[in-house]
Amino acid sequence: MTFYTFPEDNLRLFTKNVFLKMGCPEADADLATDVLLKSDLRGIDSHGVARLSGYVRLWEKKRINATPNVRVVHETATTATVDGDGGLGLVVAPFAMKVAIEKAKIYGSGWVSVKNSNHFGIAGYHSLMAVDEDMIGISMTNASPLVAPTYANERLLGTNPMCYAFPAGKYPPLVVDMATAAAANGKLEIAQRSGSPIPEGWAQDAAGNPSTNPHQLKQGGSLLPLGSDKEHGSHKGYGLSATVDILSAVLSGANYGPWVPPFVAFLEPPTDPVGEGIGHFLGAMRIDGFRPAQEFKDHLDNWITRFKNAKTVDENKKVIIPGEPEYNFEQERKIQGIPLIDVVVNDLNELATKLGIAPLS
Amino acid sequence: MTFYTFPEDNLRLFTKNVFLKMGCPEADADLATDVLLKSDLRGIDSHGVARLSGYVRLWEKKRINATPNVRVVHETATTATVDGDGGLGLVVAPFAMKVAIEKAKIYGSGWVSVKNSNHFGIAGYHSLMAVDEDMIGISMTNASPLVAPTYANERLLGTNPMCYAFPAGKYPPLVVDMATAAAANGKLEIAQRSGSPIPEGWAQDAAGNPSTNPHQLKQGGSLLPLGSDKEHGSHKGYGLSATVDILSAVLSGANYGPWVPPFVAFLEPPTDPVGEGIGHFLGAMRIDGFRPAQEFKDHLDNWITRFKNAKTVDENKKVIIPGEPEYNFEQERKIQGIPLIDVVVNDLNELATKLGIAPLS
Repeated sequence: MTFYTFPEDNLRLFTKNVFLKMGCPEADADLATDVLLKSDLRGIDSHGVARLSGYVRLWEKKRINATPNVRVVHETATTATVDGDGGLGLVVAPFAMKVAIEKAKIYGSGWVSVKNSNHFGIAGYHSLMAVDEDMIGISMTNASPLVAPTYANERLLGTNPMCYAFPAGKYPPLVVDMATAAAANGKLEIAQRSGSPIPEGWAQDAAGNPSTNPHQLKQGGSLLPLGSDKEHGSHKGYGLSATVDILSAVLSGANYGPWVPPFVAFLEPPTDPVGEGIGHFLGAMRIDGFRPAQEFKDHLDNWITRFKNAKTVDENKKVIIPGEPEYNFEQERKIQGIPLIDVVVNDLNELATKLGIAPLS
Repeated sequence: MTFYTFPEDNLRLFTKNVFLKMGCPEADADLATDVLLKSDLRGIDSHGVARLSGYVRLWEKKRINATPNVRVVHETATTATVDGDGGLGLVVAPFAMKVAIEKAKIYGSGWVSVKNSNHFGIAGYHSLMAVDEDMIGISMTNASPLVAPTYANERLLGTNPMCYAFPAGKYPPLVVDMATAAAANGKLEIAQRSGSPIPEGWAQDAAGNPSTNPHQLKQGGSLLPLGSDKEHGSHKGYGLSATVDILSAVLSGANYGPWVPPFVAFLEPPTDPVGEGIGHFLGAMRIDGFRPAQEFKDHLDNWITRFKNAKTVDENKKVIIPGEPEYNFEQERKIQGIPLIDVVVNDLNELATKLGIAPLS
């Protein structure tokens, strides 16, 4: 496995050109690019430009609308439902978060459930939009069914991430951004490439037996919810995933559970949909709706300092503040560039050839 | 271990008499009783009348104020901070949820962070208040530090539960109500009584080593976050617990992290508090702020039906719908009565003697 490193701006230009070739308006191309690059900058390599050709394949199959009419279809002062019109989630979710933020500016909070959308990239991007306004940002999405609820031998839920982001004072924002499965699919893909077994508790095989084979998921197996088994609280991971599914899709009118359309173009969506596209849920709450923002930030700094200095089991390991490793990656990669593995570089260059744009540089 | 079964009404009268003896106003005594009984009815025996003498001991030490001036101290249209004035969480949290519900009636949603409170019983009670109004109910609380974050060898967080409740149509409400630790302290107490080991992944000993001894927690050990270890996602359980702590306490001005005062009277609160009492977070969102309530309920019924009928690993086990077992307990115990173990019965009758009220009957 070889890595090649690209300056942020070059990857940004390349990515924008791909979205323009799909027919996205320029502002949408810029926004979608920004969401993907944020993921690569923050070290979440599985959700950045590595997925670019996947978005293109879905667009080629007419499962992504490059010129959607994204709009609010139902609302109260602080709630809204957004119809993404089949657009890129990378564009639809920021639209919805802006609606939430505008409502929060006036009424203290804003909450938006989204239907008829597609994969929205990293949840953290959307939550951090609220943090920039001294608000708490919340974002969730449902996703293609890969996870078996406790006791089930069927994939009924996605890895359905939930994200909460809080502005701190002297520290970077505290960002909890997590899949509700024991391990995200990206970790299985890494094990598949390296040929290593996965830990017990991540997946089960097609018969429902615990499995350490990273290829089981492609052979009818399932991922397991956070907690792994009943004894260790997998019903809690399942409950969280159900919560994300209901807020994102049952509330908006998107597809839920096993009806969520797959993110990969080679699998067809169910022929009996229960809603439109996939769903997201976004929220923003003004900090100063509860106490002065500076007081909150001072106390969150105190919280962070206490946790960073906690006594640890292994003196070489510190307690990690959620979002801090990603923040550090971002500072470093903005200067040093973004490393991509050869497989991804080749994939992107083939995409460039197909679309008739300049290769990566 | 022997069980004695009591009619709901008898336990209700007994419990109310205890709260009246503490000096609670009658309406508060009724409300606090209702919260505790709901827990016993729903089969969550650890959070019901079994804790009654614990509340009394805290009141005796003047750590619970029986006649609090519970009030909103800061607000916008849809957000508020409530000062519980050291009252019973069983009274303060419903007050705060009512504020959230009233805001939601007007503006679509309402969000309340609470400081200066005490243990609020089961989270589900508060969330279900919103469900009764065709709203989604959210409730969280921080709690005495028992849980070590990933890599830590210190108790820095409580078992900090989060609860999301949704109204269904033909089915009972779907209620996700879960501690963010791998296992709640109540499960360790059961193992302590029966002398059985606990599964690996629930706790670590004072040196930070994995332990299957249920007594370790009393000997300097810690509970572990949901996920149990880093490889199985304990950083996610830690992140959820941190989210509950920040929304409940950093946002309201309550104590957070290791500063949260212990629920037990024999342990003194920290002498360097960073806020007032413990904190809660409560929210309500009108379903019809997103789509017509009946549409939502029909789709949630469809979700539930699909999950109930899922293919399972063991044909004798069905996928469990969150909240359904508790609902079934409630129907059964309302008719058949509430079973209490002898230890609890003895404890309550000693309490009755001390307070000069009639014993259990």
